[in-house]
Amino acid sequence: MVTTQAFADRLADAVLSKRSPLVVGLDPFIDRIPLELREQAARDHEDPRAASAAAAQSFFESVLEAVAPYACAVKPQSAFFEGFGPAGCVAWERVVQRAHELDLLVIGDIKRGDIGSTARAYADAHLTGPAACDAVTLNPYMGSDSVLPFLEVADQTSGGAFVLVRTSNPSAAELQDQTLAKGARVHEHVADLVAGWGRERVGTSGFSNVGAVVGATAPAELTALRERLPHAWFLVPGVGAQGASAQDVAPAFDARGLGAVVNSSRGILYAFGDPKTRDWRSPIEQAARDLAAQLRDVSTAQSSPPR
Amino acid sequence: MVTTQAFADRLADAVLSKRSPLVVGLDPFIDRIPLELREQAARDHEDPRAASAAAAQSFFESVLEAVAPYACAVKPQSAFFEGFGPAGCVAWERVVQRAHELDLLVIGDIKRGDIGSTARAYADAHLTGPAACDAVTLNPYMGSDSVLPFLEVADQTSGGAFVLVRTSNPSAAELQDQTLAKGARVHEHVADLVAGWGRERVGTSGFSNVGAVVGATAPAELTALRERLPHAWFLVPGVGAQGASAQDVAPAFDARGLGAVVNSSRGILYAFGDPKTRDWRSPIEQAARDLAAQLRDVSTAQSSPPR
Repeated sequence: MVTTQAFADRLADAVLSKRSPLVVGLDPFIDRIPLELREQAARDHEDPRAASAAAAQSFFESVLEAVAPYACAVKPQSAFFEGFGPAGCVAWERVVQRAHELDLLVIGDIKRGDIGSTARAYADAHLTGPAACDAVTLNPYMGSDSVLPFLEVADQTSGGAFVLVRTSNPSAAELQDQTLAKGARVHEHVADLVAGWGRERVGTSGFSNVGAVVGATAPAELTALRERLPHAWFLVPGVGAQGASAQDVAPAFDARGLGAVVNSSRGILYAFGDPKTRDWRSPIEQAARDLAAQLRDVSTAQSSPPR
Repeated sequence: MVTTQAFADRLADAVLSKRSPLVVGLDPFIDRIPLELREQAARDHEDPRAASAAAAQSFFESVLEAVAPYACAVKPQSAFFEGFGPAGCVAWERVVQRAHELDLLVIGDIKRGDIGSTARAYADAHLTGPAACDAVTLNPYMGSDSVLPFLEVADQTSGGAFVLVRTSNPSAAELQDQTLAKGARVHEHVADLVAGWGRERVGTSGFSNVGAVVGATAPAELTALRERLPHAWFLVPGVGAQGASAQDVAPAFDARGLGAVVNSSRGILYAFGDPKTRDWRSPIEQAARDLAAQLRDVSTAQSSPPR
C-alpha cells in the first residue's frame, strides 16, 4: 500500500474524522469467541489449528464491521495468530486486508526487535506486501540497529512505528523504571531515543511517525512522558482488563485533545460475555461506541482550557 | 514433544556428544540460496512468496543434513520465514521437524517479548505443538511478566529460553551499556534477572534452562557476564559476518569447556559463494566442520588448566 500522507498525519485524520482515539485490539482468545462461529469452523476444517484460525477470522470480520464507525484503528496481536500455525498467518492477512477495506488503520502488534538484515526482513514482512500494516510495535532493547531498518521501510510505505517505552504490566518497572546514573530512568532514556528517531519524521499534524507505547496503568509516568515527547503519538494500553479507566488516560492527550490512541481488546471483543449467546454483535458495537464516547470526553476535557 | 530431561542438560549432552558448541543459524537470504533450488521452486509455485518459502525449505533440508554431524543445534530466524507469508510458516514447521529428525536441538530465534496471556500464546505457539522448538530467544524489556509465562510452558515441555542480555550489534550499547545509579549497567541488571529466573531451573549439568544471549563482539562484557552468570548457557552470536572470531568466544566457556553455544549463520549457509554453483553442499559441510573444530579447540583450551 503506497500512500503519500505520513502515518502520523493519517492517524490524526482518522482520530478527527471518527472523533475517536479508540484502537480495538484483536486478540483471539479462542475459548471466548462465539460458540456458533467455532462450531461452524470445526465443521469446515478438520485440523484444529485451521478451525481456530477460521473461527477467529470469521469473528474479526464481524468485529471490524461493528467497530469501524467508532475506532480509528485496530491492533491485531500476532501472538495468537502464530499459535494457529500457517492457517493463522492466512487469517492475519485477511483481517489486515478487511480492516483496510473498512478504512481502519492497522497497527500490527508484533513487538519485534532484531538487527540489521533481520530487522529489515521483519519490516518487509509487516510493512510491505499483501498484508502490510500501517504501523507496528517495536522493542527498543537492541537500540537503533533494531529500529532504523523499520523506519527506513516505513518511510517508503508512509508507515510508522510505536516503540515500547513504559508498558502497562506490573513487572514493567523491573527494568523500565531503573534509575540511570545520569538521572533519567530507563524508560525516559528510551523516550529520548524515540524523540531522536522521530525528529526527521514529523508530519504536518505536528506528530512524528515514531510513536511510543505508554501504559495507562502508570499515570505519573504517562504525564511526564507527555511532556518529554510532545511530538510522539502514544499508543496507550491498559484500559479495561488491565485495570485502568478512560479517565486514567487523560494525561496522554495534548492541548488539542490529540496525541494518544487508546487500545482496548477484551473489554470490547468479549463484551457479550457468554460465548453461547447468539446475540454477540450488538454488545461489541455498543462497547466500542461507549468507550469511544468516554475517550472523546476525556480528550476534549483535556483540550479545554488550553494549557 | 515431551521429554523428561531438562533442556539445559539436553544441550550439555548435545555439545559433548557432537564435541561441538556450534549452532547453525538458519537465515534464508533468498538471493543467496542456490539458484537451482530457486528455479525449481519457481517452476513448482506460481506465488512468489510460496516459491521463496519452498526454495528456503529445500535449501535448509540439505543444510540440516550437511551440518548435523557438526552442530549441537540450529537456530531458525523467524523474521525471514514471516516474510514468506503463510507458506513461510509451513516451511518453518517443516524445518523444525526435519532438524529434530536429524537429532538437532532447535532454538527458535523469535526474540519475542509480551505479557500475560499474550506471552502465553507466544509460548504455546513456539514451545508446543507440531513444530515445537526446544528453546526460544526472548526480549527482557517488559520484565518478568514477559518471561515467566514462557518458562512455565518450558517447564512442561522440557524446554528453555535464551534472554537477550548483551547483544552483538553496534547500537546495543545505547541502552544495554547505560550505567544505573546503583552501579551495575543495564545488561548486568538484566543478567541478574536472568539468574533469578533460572535459579529454580538448574539441571544435573549445573546449567539452568534460562540462558543468555551474549554477543562475541563485546569481549569485556562477555568475560564479566561469564562470572556473573555461572549457571547460564550463553548463546553467542557475532562470529563471522558480524566480525568476531572463534577466539573471541573463549571467555564464554567455563572451566569444563562448557557453558556456551556459538551461532554462525551466513558464514556457513553461504560458504559456497556464487549462488549459480551446483557444488554448494560440500562447502557448507566443510564450513560447519571447520568452525566446529575451531570452537572445540577454543573451548578445550579454556578448560585446561582448570580455573
